[in-house]
Amino acid sequence: MLTLYHAPRSRSTSIMVLIEEMGIADQIEVIEVTVARGDGSGAPDAKNPHPEKKVPYLTDGTDSVRERGAIIAYLTDRFPDAGFGRPVGHPQRGAFLSWLFFYQGVMEPLLVLDWAKIDHPIVQATFRDMKTVVTRLAEALDGQPYLLGDDYSAVDLLLSSPFQWLPDAAPDNPAVKAWIDRYADRPAMKAIAERESAEVQA
Amino acid sequence: MLTLYHAPRSRSTSIMVLIEEMGIADQIEVIEVTVARGDGSGAPDAKNPHPEKKVPYLTDGTDSVRERGAIIAYLTDRFPDAGFGRPVGHPQRGAFLSWLFFYQGVMEPLLVLDWAKIDHPIVQATFRDMKTVVTRLAEALDGQPYLLGDDYSAVDLLLSSPFQWLPDAAPDNPAVKAWIDRYADRPAMKAIAERESAEVQA
Repeated sequence: MLTLYHAPRSRSTSIMVLIEEMGIADQIEVIEVTVARGDGSGAPDAKNPHPEKKVPYLTDGTDSVRERGAIIAYLTDRFPDAGFGRPVGHPQRGAFLSWLFFYQGVMEPLLVLDWAKIDHPIVQATFRDMKTVVTRLAEALDGQPYLLGDDYSAVDLLLSSPFQWLPDAAPDNPAVKAWIDRYADRPAMKAIAERESAEVQA
Repeated sequence: MLTLYHAPRSRSTSIMVLIEEMGIADQIEVIEVTVARGDGSGAPDAKNPHPEKKVPYLTDGTDSVRERGAIIAYLTDRFPDAGFGRPVGHPQRGAFLSWLFFYQGVMEPLLVLDWAKIDHPIVQATFRDMKTVVTRLAEALDGQPYLLGDDYSAVDLLLSSPFQWLPDAAPDNPAVKAWIDRYADRPAMKAIAERESAEVQA
């Protein structure tokens, strides 16, 4: 049995949305843990097996998976019939993996540095900047509703996720904004957002 | 036919080593391009299809792959018999993907920020620090020569790659240092290093 360590309204929420989208909730036990939050609330949870007490963390007892991109690749490959990935051999396999690694290796570092108001020539040389990231997204969305074409996939979930929780950070680009809204409208996204908001209020 | 866009003595060199290790050089056409280098030499190359004129970039004509972690996952999945990956369904699939994404999403950003001498509480909260990265490597190497056990795999190549080219950046940890040296000794690594050093001198 797979076990997901999760903290509501955190980075692991997008994995909860993925599980809902894929219809595999009965295959994964979810254990809620606390994490240290940006606002100073919360604390690392002793029962979280993640070596840095972060979320999400997925394990089957012996093998384990950390980093959201890795968990998305792992789950979509393990349950290919759910249709939210691009399995090995699929003509968009390269594009699918590229978006996952681009998010983790370029876009998320740039979002974090942007938030911390850090700018540096070495950062620019290595990762470029958020403007370039938005250009890549807008190019991919030119003439199609989702990053890989007419159909939603797990890369839309991951790459739009920062803007779902921080709407003010959404880029000022009509195609990108429409794509963020399109994703926000999905039943799985609404269901998880509602459930986690109810938990916070409870 | 797969085509790799490559610049000698750059990030794409580790993909050249991977191709050599996997014995798939006859499956991939390599096109050399220039890139803007950190020392101010070189320039973006018009014939490089990478949208930011970086390397490596892999394409089969329609599908394409950017980011080293994505290219490693793509090639090891596409040529599973070469044995340098952990195919879908392998008991170490999660660990394999985790190391690739951990490198791209945590270790490389921290190396770049370290190099730029940038430190910030938000960076620390999100990515932790290089000390934590070295702790993770040392834990994995405790009692085994490679990150996934007795056998070398593509994650050893990716995660040790920064220290192969910048030996002074190698962490002051005996197990990690021995692992870097073990990798430097591999015939594929030596062959590519020798070939690219000869090109520079020519």
